[in-house]
Amino acid sequence: MRNEFHESLDALTVDLADMCGRAAELIQTASAALLDGDEASADRAVFEMKRLTRLGNAVQERTYGLLALQAPVARDLRTVVSALYIASDADRMGGLAAHIARTARRRHPERVIPEQVYPLFADMAYTATELAEQVRGTVNSGDPEQARRVCDGDERMNELHRELFAELVGPHWQHGAMVAADLVLVGRFYERFADHCVEIARRVYFRATGEQLCPADEPRPVGDPPILR
Amino acid sequence: MRNEFHESLDALTVDLADMCGRAAELIQTASAALLDGDEASADRAVFEMKRLTRLGNAVQERTYGLLALQAPVARDLRTVVSALYIASDADRMGGLAAHIARTARRRHPERVIPEQVYPLFADMAYTATELAEQVRGTVNSGDPEQARRVCDGDERMNELHRELFAELVGPHWQHGAMVAADLVLVGRFYERFADHCVEIARRVYFRATGEQLCPADEPRPVGDPPILR
Repeated sequence: MRNEFHESLDALTVDLADMCGRAAELIQTASAALLDGDEASADRAVFEMKRLTRLGNAVQERTYGLLALQAPVARDLRTVVSALYIASDADRMGGLAAHIARTARRRHPERVIPEQVYPLFADMAYTATELAEQVRGTVNSGDPEQARRVCDGDERMNELHRELFAELVGPHWQHGAMVAADLVLVGRFYERFADHCVEIARRVYFRATGEQLCPADEPRPVGDPPILR
Repeated sequence: MRNEFHESLDALTVDLADMCGRAAELIQTASAALLDGDEASADRAVFEMKRLTRLGNAVQERTYGLLALQAPVARDLRTVVSALYIASDADRMGGLAAHIARTARRRHPERVIPEQVYPLFADMAYTATELAEQVRGTVNSGDPEQARRVCDGDERMNELHRELFAELVGPHWQHGAMVAADLVLVGRFYERFADHCVEIARRVYFRATGEQLCPADEPRPVGDPPILR
């Protein structure tokens, strides 16, 4: 039977999905700043980041309220604690997007991305935006199959990251250490953005199936819900 | 009056401090691998990381247990939820140390760090280890003044990080883009390690004082305990 508490949980889910959607918009905006040298996009990304953090704080206060007033147990407890972690991950995704935007602004009017690796970064930007959009849908639906697809998308990001390193250390690299230093960091921000998408997807997967979406021989990263029934 | 629940909270604090202490040892071991090219240290760091994660998972299961069975409120609830975040941060510190160790192992028997920036990285390693040690003490004591000193230590790390970039883009850099790419990432790992120390210190500070240890005009990062009394 549905009650007020479960309605609050549903509302929390809607807000968490909204946070992921905003992180998707943020990485798209930051990527426009990076790839097209668009300064207005850079400023917008930094501004929107602060709004995302405020939403995250509001989500978190409500989560504390649910813990304090409803004292949930079992699956409900896992759902509420997951919300704390998902809000943190989505907030961090926004923070990474803001880092990318700031890198673009710092170099303005010069471009950060040389032609040689432009398609690679355009692909990273596309992959990150897609992942965040998929995560939004996954949080909304709670569908474990959708969660699994997020992990596949992350594989693509890891490939792109390896390609970036191959370019930087390859014989055709002629842009020097300074440009390489910027690109390594920006590449890292995209990679971490994707990692946080996967973290969120793994939480959704676990909640839906009670199983872990990660190799069995690796210890689970701390923050994974333990299997308490 | 002390009761079983508060004894459990105390035990949790001891284990969280232990996690920070292990993260301090880990960054020291990983730094030995990095600075001295010591392969055995690199392997040990990666191995110890897995133990840290297991401890973190155990801490977390107990935290879930406390939430489910004791339904804490007010200050106790903040303490329990903080434990989840602190365990996550300490685990991530270990993960970053393991990344540094893996970078050292990948380049073995070559050294990752050229003479030119050796003192700088030695200082980063020292600063990171000190910070983690201070955080261990801070978690143990709950002392807000000690927490504040962690934030000062992080300032030192940020300075070192800026110095690193100045070296890489300066006229005396002669080690090319590949070495620069490695160093940027390793520098970023140390910087993030320090950031997680600060996150933990801020949680301790807030619990002790009810106030935030961060600039007032910035929204708090999500994951900060809201001010619910």
